[in-house]
Amino acid sequence: MQHSKNIAIVGSGLVGSLLALHLKKVGHTITVFDRRPDVRLVEFSGRSINLAMSNRGWKALREAGVEEEIRKLAIPLYQRAMHVDNDPVYFQKYGKEGEAIYSISRGVLSRKMIDLAEAAGVEFRFEEKVWDVDLSEAKLYTGESEKGEWKEYDFDLIFGADGAFSRVRHKMQRQSRFNYSQDFIDVGYKELRIPPNEDGSYRLDKNSFHIWPRGNFMLIAMPNLDASFTCTLFMPFEGEISFEAINSGEKADNFFSEHFPDIKDEISNLTRDFMKNPTSALLTVKCYPWTYYDKIALVGDAAHAIVPFYGQGMNAGFEDISFLSELHQKYGDDWESIFRIYQEERKPNADAIAELSYRNFLEMSSKTADPDFLLRKKIEKHFATRHPEKWTPVYSRVTFSENPYSEALQEGDRQARIMDEIMQLPGISEKWDSKEVEDRILELLKGK
Amino acid sequence: MQHSKNIAIVGSGLVGSLLALHLKKVGHTITVFDRRPDVRLVEFSGRSINLAMSNRGWKALREAGVEEEIRKLAIPLYQRAMHVDNDPVYFQKYGKEGEAIYSISRGVLSRKMIDLAEAAGVEFRFEEKVWDVDLSEAKLYTGESEKGEWKEYDFDLIFGADGAFSRVRHKMQRQSRFNYSQDFIDVGYKELRIPPNEDGSYRLDKNSFHIWPRGNFMLIAMPNLDASFTCTLFMPFEGEISFEAINSGEKADNFFSEHFPDIKDEISNLTRDFMKNPTSALLTVKCYPWTYYDKIALVGDAAHAIVPFYGQGMNAGFEDISFLSELHQKYGDDWESIFRIYQEERKPNADAIAELSYRNFLEMSSKTADPDFLLRKKIEKHFATRHPEKWTPVYSRVTFSENPYSEALQEGDRQARIMDEIMQLPGISEKWDSKEVEDRILELLKGK
Repeated sequence: MQHSKNIAIVGSGLVGSLLALHLKKVGHTITVFDRRPDVRLVEFSGRSINLAMSNRGWKALREAGVEEEIRKLAIPLYQRAMHVDNDPVYFQKYGKEGEAIYSISRGVLSRKMIDLAEAAGVEFRFEEKVWDVDLSEAKLYTGESEKGEWKEYDFDLIFGADGAFSRVRHKMQRQSRFNYSQDFIDVGYKELRIPPNEDGSYRLDKNSFHIWPRGNFMLIAMPNLDASFTCTLFMPFEGEISFEAINSGEKADNFFSEHFPDIKDEISNLTRDFMKNPTSALLTVKCYPWTYYDKIALVGDAAHAIVPFYGQGMNAGFEDISFLSELHQKYGDDWESIFRIYQEERKPNADAIAELSYRNFLEMSSKTADPDFLLRKKIEKHFATRHPEKWTPVYSRVTFSENPYSEALQEGDRQARIMDEIMQLPGISEKWDSKEVEDRILELLKGK
Repeated sequence: MQHSKNIAIVGSGLVGSLLALHLKKVGHTITVFDRRPDVRLVEFSGRSINLAMSNRGWKALREAGVEEEIRKLAIPLYQRAMHVDNDPVYFQKYGKEGEAIYSISRGVLSRKMIDLAEAAGVEFRFEEKVWDVDLSEAKLYTGESEKGEWKEYDFDLIFGADGAFSRVRHKMQRQSRFNYSQDFIDVGYKELRIPPNEDGSYRLDKNSFHIWPRGNFMLIAMPNLDASFTCTLFMPFEGEISFEAINSGEKADNFFSEHFPDIKDEISNLTRDFMKNPTSALLTVKCYPWTYYDKIALVGDAAHAIVPFYGQGMNAGFEDISFLSELHQKYGDDWESIFRIYQEERKPNADAIAELSYRNFLEMSSKTADPDFLLRKKIEKHFATRHPEKWTPVYSRVTFSENPYSEALQEGDRQARIMDEIMQLPGISEKWDSKEVEDRILELLKGK
């Protein structure tokens, strides 16, 4: 049996709002704090990468009873559209027939989630900054400034859903034996925009994830409901081609003319936005423990921020909420067990998706031009098409299944060991699609 | 040419005091802040492991002109004294004839360093806690409490020598693209004490580092000038034999009777001290960057805290100061170059000694009972004795040389690759000291 608890959630972002919805629906009293203004009342900043909702995210929304509402905001992407140099665009299906990831604007989704949570009875306290947390008493202290007067709140439980730079985690970090790491990659990103055509239609294929890979930098574009695309330029901070080097509107213009001539003219106010929009950093955050007895738990980016190259950041955060909700159904009032099992079982999966996301970053920045790598991918794809039951690509395991991320990582490592051997076969580049290679893979699959 | 700068050092510990001495002697104005009381006026806490000064530490003290003073406080340890179960004690020489590490009590050294720095004209401000740092203006804010009135200080440069939980680093950590990790190991430690005999003599061999290895826990003892020994018990926090499990004086008594019968009765007030002295945690801290333009630099544990299993924590911190001092002589007023080169060249060495120290921890806790491991060590030692010019043990490279830690790590990895092959030789356990094995190592040394 469950008693109604007085629960605080710090952070009104996607994961915080979803958690609020879940907990409100099972009868708890929920207050969400956010230091920022209500996202529904302000323009959303030019520093977001569009979201790619996949199976794990949808599952969590379904459980919260809001899947249908959110589906209306999402555009299915069935394929990658690769814009490689001057070649014609070519398409790579993401999965099997009907499998898609879904593009959603972060601002649009965030506003909707808050609307839904508010309608369910969740109280939101915007522009109220949490300065301190009493972990053992589950108290929050908020106020105008760190040194000013603070207001004290008393709760039964507190969730830190306050993102990669979590204040709640920050407080936990001061305890002894709290492991923590933050690792920035050398690549940053900047948001740009492709507006609709004058007739209101999309300028690029609507149901594709568009990629302009250029070695150690790349541009991506994802569709919005208003027929615009949100573009993200990923590029090193320093070096020959870098945000540091491209430090004027003129240089940005030249850079796009040289490297993205096919799309340059579609981007609105390129030089203005390039100079005006912030260059944002990307990092991986790991920590442990995630919880403090039956009082405090971290969820989403506050517990495990990852780089965005697998499109799983939000999905991983939503899956935290699915799992917590499942445990809450099972263990009821026993929050100490809920929190203990949550962190023990969820941590290896969070580490796995962090690793997979980081590897995708390395792959994209260093290997996309490597002929061995491309051959390898071609062999894998050929084999997977012939034996779909024997070779599920890691991408599909991550994106279109709800099996643990850690299994996807393990299976990926197993596939990599097999492919390492296959790539050693003499003359592999000629006989890559031969029966011999196919049989050898089948044989290796039995052993590894 | 150098201009006199107004320099703050946060932290009056060993590294902070040494840095203060160095900078004062070349004409700067130095203020050292410490939130703790003057260590010369209080009893030193029961949570320190005796220091093992080795070549890098002595070099830095020599350069600061205080080597002779400190030598008086140090006891040379020429060997390990291994107390293995009920076997007689056996000794392992650390290095060549005359090579030794030097036992110094942390409290004694700390007090002396502050005396020396104060005599040179360094100003110490004890019990003055730094709450905030303005990185770009090199300002410090101190005060009674985080929320009370703060006093503002203006400096030209600020050094963070404030240890593993550095406040200065904490401020740097809030910047974007600051990489940081803190990793605790599952083993903690507790200080105990063996007093002198009644006639004032040492109860154990004075010139040895005493070790009672017991698999995943161990006791060590290092001599003090007053003929006592400082003992440190390393043990897991949780598990069958752990600080959690041994939670009463009676259990501590039984534990020592069972596992350390030969030394138990020499330890003073065993059950009282076991219960009273804190159980302390051990961690590795890594971060980057270490500096902020020409304004701020981290030194010692604030930049690179390591686990103590190589006895290099203080030595590595002192070597930071040697290197900074060398750069200061070369680059004079150009603090931006000094700081840039300092962090770029020093970081790989700090990472290397962190790795070596962590590996020693793993080795001690899991491999000391492994016959393969012991055979391997025996072969290495045999070969090194016959070909000292061809095989310098990593321990000697770290402890008795001033060559970079990163070289020691690389050379250790090279030796490990060679030994991996040697251990695969059929019948190696019989022919380990044969000419065949010796020749094979010589051959491999040419290739790797």
